[in-house]
Amino acid sequence: MAVPSGRHFLQIPGPTNVPDRVLHAIARPVIDHRGPEFADLGAAALGALKSVVRTRADLVIYPASGTGAWEAALVNTLSPGDRVLMFETGHFSTLWARMARSLGLEPEVVPGDWRSGADPAALEERLSRDTGHAIAAVAVVHNETSTGVTSRIPEIRAAMDRAGHPALLLVDTISSLGSVEYEHDAWGVDVTVGCSQKGLMLPPGLSFNAIGAKALEASAAGGMPRSYWDWAPMLEAGESGYFPYTPPTNLLYGLVEAVGMLHEEGLERVFARHRRHAEATRAAVRAWGLEVLCRVPEEYSPVLTAVLMPEDKGADAFRAAVLERFDMSLGAGLGRLSDRVFRIGHLGDLNDLTLLGALGGIEAGLRLAGVPHEPGGADAAARVLADAPPR
Amino acid sequence: MAVPSGRHFLQIPGPTNVPDRVLHAIARPVIDHRGPEFADLGAAALGALKSVVRTRADLVIYPASGTGAWEAALVNTLSPGDRVLMFETGHFSTLWARMARSLGLEPEVVPGDWRSGADPAALEERLSRDTGHAIAAVAVVHNETSTGVTSRIPEIRAAMDRAGHPALLLVDTISSLGSVEYEHDAWGVDVTVGCSQKGLMLPPGLSFNAIGAKALEASAAGGMPRSYWDWAPMLEAGESGYFPYTPPTNLLYGLVEAVGMLHEEGLERVFARHRRHAEATRAAVRAWGLEVLCRVPEEYSPVLTAVLMPEDKGADAFRAAVLERFDMSLGAGLGRLSDRVFRIGHLGDLNDLTLLGALGGIEAGLRLAGVPHEPGGADAAARVLADAPPR
Amino acid sequence: MAVPSGRHFLQIPGPTNVPDRVLHAIARPVIDHRGPEFADLGAAALGALKSVVRTRADLVIYPASGTGAWEAALVNTLSPGDRVLMFETGHFSTLWARMARSLGLEPEVVPGDWRSGADPAALEERLSRDTGHAIAAVAVVHNETSTGVTSRIPEIRAAMDRAGHPALLLVDTISSLGSVEYEHDAWGVDVTVGCSQKGLMLPPGLSFNAIGAKALEASAAGGMPRSYWDWAPMLEAGESGYFPYTPPTNLLYGLVEAVGMLHEEGLERVFARHRRHAEATRAAVRAWGLEVLCRVPEEYSPVLTAVLMPEDKGADAFRAAVLERFDMSLGAGLGRLSDRVFRIGHLGDLNDLTLLGALGGIEAGLRLAGVPHEPGGADAAARVLADAPPR
Amino acid sequence: MAVPSGRHFLQIPGPTNVPDRVLHAIARPVIDHRGPEFADLGAAALGALKSVVRTRADLVIYPASGTGAWEAALVNTLSPGDRVLMFETGHFSTLWARMARSLGLEPEVVPGDWRSGADPAALEERLSRDTGHAIAAVAVVHNETSTGVTSRIPEIRAAMDRAGHPALLLVDTISSLGSVEYEHDAWGVDVTVGCSQKGLMLPPGLSFNAIGAKALEASAAGGMPRSYWDWAPMLEAGESGYFPYTPPTNLLYGLVEAVGMLHEEGLERVFARHRRHAEATRAAVRAWGLEVLCRVPEEYSPVLTAVLMPEDKGADAFRAAVLERFDMSLGAGLGRLSDRVFRIGHLGDLNDLTLLGALGGIEAGLRLAGVPHEPGGADAAARVLADAPPR
Repeated sequence: MAVPSGRHFLQIPGPTNVPDRVLHAIARPVIDHRGPEFADLGAAALGALKSVVRTRADLVIYPASGTGAWEAALVNTLSPGDRVLMFETGHFSTLWARMARSLGLEPEVVPGDWRSGADPAALEERLSRDTGHAIAAVAVVHNETSTGVTSRIPEIRAAMDRAGHPALLLVDTISSLGSVEYEHDAWGVDVTVGCSQKGLMLPPGLSFNAIGAKALEASAAGGMPRSYWDWAPMLEAGESGYFPYTPPTNLLYGLVEAVGMLHEEGLERVFARHRRHAEATRAAVRAWGLEVLCRVPEEYSPVLTAVLMPEDKGADAFRAAVLERFDMSLGAGLGRLSDRVFRIGHLGDLNDLTLLGALGGIEAGLRLAGVPHEPGGADAAARVLADAPPR
Repeated sequence: MAVPSGRHFLQIPGPTNVPDRVLHAIARPVIDHRGPEFADLGAAALGALKSVVRTRADLVIYPASGTGAWEAALVNTLSPGDRVLMFETGHFSTLWARMARSLGLEPEVVPGDWRSGADPAALEERLSRDTGHAIAAVAVVHNETSTGVTSRIPEIRAAMDRAGHPALLLVDTISSLGSVEYEHDAWGVDVTVGCSQKGLMLPPGLSFNAIGAKALEASAAGGMPRSYWDWAPMLEAGESGYFPYTPPTNLLYGLVEAVGMLHEEGLERVFARHRRHAEATRAAVRAWGLEVLCRVPEEYSPVLTAVLMPEDKGADAFRAAVLERFDMSLGAGLGRLSDRVFRIGHLGDLNDLTLLGALGGIEAGLRLAGVPHEPGGADAAARVLADAPPR
Repeated sequence: MAVPSGRHFLQIPGPTNVPDRVLHAIARPVIDHRGPEFADLGAAALGALKSVVRTRADLVIYPASGTGAWEAALVNTLSPGDRVLMFETGHFSTLWARMARSLGLEPEVVPGDWRSGADPAALEERLSRDTGHAIAAVAVVHNETSTGVTSRIPEIRAAMDRAGHPALLLVDTISSLGSVEYEHDAWGVDVTVGCSQKGLMLPPGLSFNAIGAKALEASAAGGMPRSYWDWAPMLEAGESGYFPYTPPTNLLYGLVEAVGMLHEEGLERVFARHRRHAEATRAAVRAWGLEVLCRVPEEYSPVLTAVLMPEDKGADAFRAAVLERFDMSLGAGLGRLSDRVFRIGHLGDLNDLTLLGALGGIEAGLRLAGVPHEPGGADAAARVLADAPPR
Repeated sequence: MAVPSGRHFLQIPGPTNVPDRVLHAIARPVIDHRGPEFADLGAAALGALKSVVRTRADLVIYPASGTGAWEAALVNTLSPGDRVLMFETGHFSTLWARMARSLGLEPEVVPGDWRSGADPAALEERLSRDTGHAIAAVAVVHNETSTGVTSRIPEIRAAMDRAGHPALLLVDTISSLGSVEYEHDAWGVDVTVGCSQKGLMLPPGLSFNAIGAKALEASAAGGMPRSYWDWAPMLEAGESGYFPYTPPTNLLYGLVEAVGMLHEEGLERVFARHRRHAEATRAAVRAWGLEVLCRVPEEYSPVLTAVLMPEDKGADAFRAAVLERFDMSLGAGLGRLSDRVFRIGHLGDLNDLTLLGALGGIEAGLRLAGVPHEPGGADAAARVLADAPPR
């Protein structure tokens, strides 16, 4: 379909659809990043992010992708050779571990099946064995974007506490923040890593670290050689609303607007909406007779659903057909799941009818591509949505 | 739903969704309407409109709603007391006749059942009886937006020709232009009336008359006292790309962009898309066990489908529930159809998946509102779309 | 200069620069003009306009240029053959009189020299002679855009009162509203005519009539055959925030935003700013040794300044040179002033430095085009601005 | 001035004014960064940047501020403890040296007076003494944004060649690229560092390295532990138009549009425009009786002019007055120049009249703030502009 009409359906698990209000905010003229107006903007942006991360602790914003905030979390708190315990929940946890190794750390990876989250019991067991406290940090991906599995951070924290282990807890909320319940302070997280282009409904290019007191101490005492990612000058400048180098002004405009929208809807309602859409999506998948990748119901992701293809059918050909004919982008299988799953993003600025359109398009695409399935998936989703309580 | 997420579903039969490219065009800075840059814009806008109306004749653009272009067509060609033959195809044809009377003309209305188009046979019969040529003009609404019925203009023209009657043929293309085949020159239309906010994918505020040679003569010889709507100064200024008064610059930007998009997709493909969406919609309506208002298959509108509600159910309560819960606007029943039908707009910048989302929302809304129906409408539409030929 | 950098200087007396906030408002998606959200918008738009026109009376908004609102004022209040007293203040008053004649009225024009405003004494004298009250209305252009002269409406009203004449007072505020003090109610105006693209900082395409009680009575009792411009259905629909035909939704968004901006700055400060810019401009003109067209100081326009060219120099060649070299549009001389004056618009969304840039460009252009002048005009303006009281 | 009208004058040396076309590009919907449409965008963005950097070599784009690209240049080419020769041209060269030290390098700084550029003779002398080739790289800031001095890169290269020294040449073009002649390939630069928010007329958030063959070899053989900044995965993914992590999609849209605009105007004309504006600005400064900071005429910056304040007058109070009263941002003195200079940015999307407005505002501000000066600066600039050759 060379020149499509209407709006592209961007149903990947991020970047997500940016609301017009946010696009308009981003399109405002740039201002002097050393002037008084910027100080107000910088303070508003920090406050906005803290209200979503649910913290009163420190927070620094980087002009960078989320990957940069991964790096920042590591280089500020850990020293070369430090051991980090990581969980193989999927492709992104694997990349984070690879980054740790590149930076000179010693990642120790708890193996996983890519169909479930970080295992609190395994963590407790491992930490209990680490009597010498060789493990400097535990790093967990809250919502694994490659599999559609959401790890249970409070249980992870509880396991660490039970083990009485002093390791720092670093949590990647890249694809959960703003879509799934998250509590930096209440859950006892030391460093939260997040970015703009998922639940925060912004274009990519802005990422951040929320920094608990223990992490800040670790940073002051050690860390690696660093400059761009260094928390110290960021925090110093940030106290007056400024940045130590040129800030991403236009994304900050958008951040303030987008977080304002989240609060207008109400964070609780936002989270409930994501759960409802995930449930409707799983209802469709089951009606089609296909299998959801995540095999632990209490870890079903509210933000995306990865769907296993029937054995002999390639997911990528199916996705290509859907893109070509129905102008919809679905997420690809990544890493070891390549061509085996397709991922349906249902996060960010989304509503019931767009989700129904997406599911209708998947059903039409399954038919078009000759993938064996039962019809009625979109119908099943519509029933879930019609029968959901009013909000 | 106080603060909805995602995009509103605007499924009324116009105004339609304005593509971002067009919104950005409209948001360009205003320019001097007497400067050389404007002359290029004015010429481009006229050329763009002519390419869609399919004419090499004259064309004038008004800063006004389509209603203004109705008035312009009448006051330029007809004199007080002139008789105009009009067809009661629905609410809008009735309003046009009422306007004619307000302006001092003598509308003669051929009665209709609001479920079919203008009848060529009735026209031929009436004109044949008018041996004294008292009828100065025949006015037809091409696509009756209140009913979803598209009159067959070439057969209307043929009937006039067969009757050998010199009346002018005035055609309202307000909701057909850019969505349904139309040929001002080839079909022998004398005045075409159109506007911006339907198939042309623009906001409201711009309307036009395409003017055949016979109409221009009538205008030079007569017409009513007029100033704003007067063709003569418009045509004179328009030759150099200017306007006799301040033009709607920003909508002209949008017009050039929007017509460019129609040609990028290809007018034939645009028309085929509208027919496909109409067919998918009727498949859904039938699957629900509901009735399409239009009772003449060759007059089914490609741009909207009016659906009759079951006897004891009010359409307005249903529409309100759909708006409240699913953030979708559907068209109301107008005039004598008030509360008896709802209208599904499927025109303008629309694609298959948005249509599926809309139909899914209607199905969910029927369930939510307790309207008796069979499930499976959206599924039926999805099958039509999946099985449509590639384009 | 084929491809200019930076922003065009639009220093014509309208259309004016549309602020980004207003452009963004206009670029919002169109909504259902029959839905509840529209009712709020329609009511907000009416309220916004009334707050600037300073009236509690009725007001109707047209999707049309200001010229349409001229026509509306005439066809609603006057009957064919009615006499209207008009003042020849310049090109636009002349066009309005021509329109009146086209519509079948009897305009009686008080001659003028195009360098001064409507003469209250002449008005009183003429009305006093009209003992039979043959004159149905007095029509005055508040700010004559072709000359830079602002007529004194309160003195016009006082003259009518002194003459004890019942004629309606129709006032064109097209280029004054939002830039110059104006009081529909307090000044006893019967119909105010205005539009979007000047002091209201909007693109063209929206115009209005504010309607006093006496005008409304006249309209109910008489007026001309009319439909698009008819006040009655507009007022009826407007009570609930709707329109009798498709409204200019996107300009209404912009209107609410733009009037909000005027109130944020404060109407009094807006008016003072226009007076300051006019004063600075006249200081520049005098420093150049050129002559301001307006010859009555108390009628100097706050919104534009027309400047007489030295005898043997054409204004249009000068303007073309400025456009070519400095990417600035200046207003042309109109009608009998063609090529004799250029007009500097200093209204709408303008600030001191943009005005200084414009005046600097005129000075550079005079030098470039070889127009005899003294240097130092922009300097003189800068001194006026530097020495103005803080606001 | 609490609520200003008109447009803010952003006359700092970056971020610069982003043209509407670019803002509209940035406000386009985000797309799937793994889909085919993105591959085209990625390739177009790389091509666009290379056309301005004037290179056929490799290039990597970071979602980051320019500071990040500084870091990337260092960590890819140099190993811990490596010696880098840097020139103290001003505040930014000092920061770059500080970064080098933070990252574990050994910066050796050639002292400077902050009023002139990098000295080719001193460089040649130093390199000639380094017979053991302990110096791994020479790092120069092309245009020192804190002082308005442009170093002569070709002469720097020639000095290195004369010394026969194998050190890499790293050049920061952050505030020169797109405004001042620059030739990565022809001048023999090894790594060019640049970013978005200056001559490229984009918001901040995108930066890059252009990478010569020798630098690429150094990178393959060594460099520091790195991940986010690592060239290798960037180059690998970039070959097909993709990124190893989420790319700054919306800034890439803007980049393609902005570079398109530079080429529409013509790079040579863009550079000439910057020189013309710089000359006009210096004419104004001299007319005021103030002193330009740069003391080497052949090193005058085309992109900004730093102006020394009279001895007992603080630059910051003056800047604050100009901001408060005239809504113009001027650049502050940085580092040792704090409060001693103000900087006038005249780069990016700027034209003659906006510059005249800015200079007029500075003159009015000098008067307002009681800074001793001669009047006539803006006039002097206007004469320079009027007498410049047509382009």
